[in-house]
Amino acid sequence: MSKPIFKIKPLGGVGQIGSNMTLIETATERIVIDCGILFPYEDYFDINYLIPNLSNEAPFDHIIFTHGHEDHIGAVSHFIQHSPDAKIHAGDFTAALIRKKIEYNKTPHHIDVFEYNQTLKFNDISVDPIRVNHSIPDTFGLLIKDHKEFFALFFASDFKIDFKTKYELPFDFEKLKRLSTNAQKRVFMADSTNILSSNLNTPSEFDLIAHFEKIFEKLENRLFVTCFSSNIHRLKTLIDLCEKYEFKLVPHGRSVISYLNIANEKGMIPNFDTVVRLPDQIQKSQKNLCVILSGCQGDHLGTLRRVAINEDSQFKLKPEDTVIFSSKPIPGNEKKVSLIMNKITELGANLVTDPKALFHVSGHPGKNDLLKIYQEFDPHTIIPIHGETLFLKEHVKFISEAYPQASSILVENFDDLHFFENLEIRKIKGERLDPVIIHGNSIPIERERISERRKISCNGGVFLSLTPNNKLKKIDRFEFSTLGLPAHFHNNEEQFKTFLTGFFDQNKINDPEKFKEEVRVAIRRYCDVNIGYKPTTIVHLVTV
Amino acid sequence: MSKPIFKIKPLGGVGQIGSNMTLIETATERIVIDCGILFPYEDYFDINYLIPNLSNEAPFDHIIFTHGHEDHIGAVSHFIQHSPDAKIHAGDFTAALIRKKIEYNKTPHHIDVFEYNQTLKFNDISVDPIRVNHSIPDTFGLLIKDHKEFFALFFASDFKIDFKTKYELPFDFEKLKRLSTNAQKRVFMADSTNILSSNLNTPSEFDLIAHFEKIFEKLENRLFVTCFSSNIHRLKTLIDLCEKYEFKLVPHGRSVISYLNIANEKGMIPNFDTVVRLPDQIQKSQKNLCVILSGCQGDHLGTLRRVAINEDSQFKLKPEDTVIFSSKPIPGNEKKVSLIMNKITELGANLVTDPKALFHVSGHPGKNDLLKIYQEFDPHTIIPIHGETLFLKEHVKFISEAYPQASSILVENFDDLHFFENLEIRKIKGERLDPVIIHGNSIPIERERISERRKISCNGGVFLSLTPNNKLKKIDRFEFSTLGLPAHFHNNEEQFKTFLTGFFDQNKINDPEKFKEEVRVAIRRYCDVNIGYKPTTIVHLVTV
Repeated sequence: MSKPIFKIKPLGGVGQIGSNMTLIETATERIVIDCGILFPYEDYFDINYLIPNLSNEAPFDHIIFTHGHEDHIGAVSHFIQHSPDAKIHAGDFTAALIRKKIEYNKTPHHIDVFEYNQTLKFNDISVDPIRVNHSIPDTFGLLIKDHKEFFALFFASDFKIDFKTKYELPFDFEKLKRLSTNAQKRVFMADSTNILSSNLNTPSEFDLIAHFEKIFEKLENRLFVTCFSSNIHRLKTLIDLCEKYEFKLVPHGRSVISYLNIANEKGMIPNFDTVVRLPDQIQKSQKNLCVILSGCQGDHLGTLRRVAINEDSQFKLKPEDTVIFSSKPIPGNEKKVSLIMNKITELGANLVTDPKALFHVSGHPGKNDLLKIYQEFDPHTIIPIHGETLFLKEHVKFISEAYPQASSILVENFDDLHFFENLEIRKIKGERLDPVIIHGNSIPIERERISERRKISCNGGVFLSLTPNNKLKKIDRFEFSTLGLPAHFHNNEEQFKTFLTGFFDQNKINDPEKFKEEVRVAIRRYCDVNIGYKPTTIVHLVTV
Repeated sequence: MSKPIFKIKPLGGVGQIGSNMTLIETATERIVIDCGILFPYEDYFDINYLIPNLSNEAPFDHIIFTHGHEDHIGAVSHFIQHSPDAKIHAGDFTAALIRKKIEYNKTPHHIDVFEYNQTLKFNDISVDPIRVNHSIPDTFGLLIKDHKEFFALFFASDFKIDFKTKYELPFDFEKLKRLSTNAQKRVFMADSTNILSSNLNTPSEFDLIAHFEKIFEKLENRLFVTCFSSNIHRLKTLIDLCEKYEFKLVPHGRSVISYLNIANEKGMIPNFDTVVRLPDQIQKSQKNLCVILSGCQGDHLGTLRRVAINEDSQFKLKPEDTVIFSSKPIPGNEKKVSLIMNKITELGANLVTDPKALFHVSGHPGKNDLLKIYQEFDPHTIIPIHGETLFLKEHVKFISEAYPQASSILVENFDDLHFFENLEIRKIKGERLDPVIIHGNSIPIERERISERRKISCNGGVFLSLTPNNKLKKIDRFEFSTLGLPAHFHNNEEQFKTFLTGFFDQNKINDPEKFKEEVRVAIRRYCDVNIGYKPTTIVHLVTV
């Protein structure tokens, strides 16, 4: 059998939502698309984020970024450490976001900014950006072709179709069709994010304007809006309405100020100077303000949370203020967001909860939107990506029902797809590696260590330091501390000391390691009887 | 001003969902309705549950239980400890559930089982049970009247209206109206659980049968269904379908077996012996099985989770098996449940995800259902209960729009409502107390201790034992342990030891307490520089 023309291997982003990264491997080059982070489910443990596991991967030659969301660019500094000689390709706005990130992380690197009409030419393949719609400017699908055009592979992990929006040009079906029509086999790697949604057609950004306008029409006091900080389209909607109704828009929070500034530098916000004011440029008593709060998911450090719990130094919510969530909780954040809403209600502000009002639209395609691309692009094979396993399977089912003329391939991370000249696509099962957990100074932390943290957070801890007498047979002195144990334990601390003393009186130290373990077990047993669980227990025996 | 005829004070259940408890105080008696638990939002910390804070409450004389859900009966043993002389009143099925609970907790107590046509007579008020529909048998609203019938207060924290169900009689409007018609003022304390739902009419349990039947019609292999274990109506639907299609129903999990047995003892399941088999009564290869899995919220110890992660010893999911979620995630559990669904999909089983199929209905009223009660009962005043603050406020808004002839009162936990002979209801703002957190052997744990656990779970820990030399000026020996720190730290442990030795060489011990604190701060600073965060650090100085 001949060698494949190229291979495709997802290194992240399928079977999970986040940490998107896909490898295209040809005879002479290793090119990846995106390198994103995954936000952890277990956010209590202060884990910063997870990144694709590249421990089995040789350095890459190129990386192409499709757009500037964190789940696509967030791990760029880790990428640079892994592949210091790789060339970075990105659109203009995305490049600006990446530049900011690599400056902050002190991993400087040159970025080749591509133009829309430019073809990225590699040794064995070419890549053309295809304009799609999404919730951040400058988002592209990528049309990947081998030089003999056996295959035209359209990679579109994040997109929607929006013919109505004022803020970006619509999905470029014409270019997609023109450049793929000569290929012998068309393949579509397609976004599965909204496959379970009952919304079959994702509404346009434009559809929101009327709903916001209704609010502005009656607005006599301050409006607080929280949305994804990177959603420049949403911010432009609000800036335009602020201009019309003579309000000032006040970005409040580091991330939203940073995104707005970059968009402004790129000339995306012509009325910036007229409308936008920083928090320290406005008066406390000013009423005609639209304050944008960061951290719409209830993030611990976001201004939304700070304002909601009344701990923000700049803005205190009052009963005459109006609050709008121009966002939806990401799965897993529902309760956190609803607690924030509760807090806002308790402060007396007017939280808009009208279920008929539309203040947020998704950036991903509904089933009918997907079907439209199938019909326009006419793929022979569709490969669902960007979704958990359940989503990918649903997407496969949807293809078989709604577009049976195409076949589909279900892939998992690290599966390797081989594309052959005879147009066959063969899947080689890969070894799945868990994403790497990052905490603190970009330092990986192992799962066993997280498990230690979890145990002590569930059951508390006891730490005991022992000093034996010189003959090393009996304990002379000891000191102990506890962590996270109930008052019930502390109120009976004398009893615990008596128990320890009794134990030391009865047990000689023959083997220090064995002795420490016996003490540890005895303490855990004591706690289990007295409080009903066994704390993490650490015993030190410091010999003199 | 004269004294109030009676007072009502919610001790739990308003401003939060769970830990329901409401005090009725008359001149001579203290009567409470329900004593439930609240399931914690922070389930990582293994907190078992939260209970109403009774630290400012004198003992009660009576408790009336409306139904057997955990958020209404779960804290009964704590109640008995607080009010050992109180009389307990409950319906027959609820009493059976309470009996099991107090036996398990070794807090035995007599229960007065009331009949439906019985009036509970107290010194100053009477209470009549009013039959409502709900997701557990034997649920009652309570009609509370003073003897002169100034007020008729209908308390219904959990109910729906279901005229179609086969499993229970419908909401008893006739009795409610008959017994309240002579009162001078009617007051309705009403369920707010579904006030934000777009479902205006909660569907009937009956509506599910056709959807399940469609599944059974085609079923050739095993069906796994997860639902709330206490939902006897749901289990009866499945038992009846199993009988019709010649399947056996296998309850799998302690809670579902226990609820089914109690329902059977109460004569609620006539076809129990024909249809129900325990897991050890069936053959491994048997195909015509409907297995009921407990822990539909993804609970750590439930059989659903165990089966989904393929760690159940009795049942291994196969691709030919069908899985149905006959439940909805409780807010906060969405991600946990979706991860379980993912796992089931990864095992290859056929998870039914058809958005048009109805396998679960709520046990609470939609807005139209509430309106129907307003119209039938004709209250002068409505007091929203059973909901977070946001829900209660929405309920108040709904009343002003949909039923403006009634006034409404927004209450929070520990607010005291005084009911006067002149028909006035006055709200006295109360001091809100946080619910008590229970962990382990029914032992309360303080919030500061939870905070300690959270800190170490986020940043790991360092524990250091020091032994000074005899002159107590220098450290002779030390031993340290870490908890939850990354390999990066351990790989550089020699550097940490050098740092410690250097510190001990340079610093004399003058004041042992001050010295310990200096060491602690230095270690935290060292970690911050090297890994980017400051672990919880505990230092012992054991003198000889």
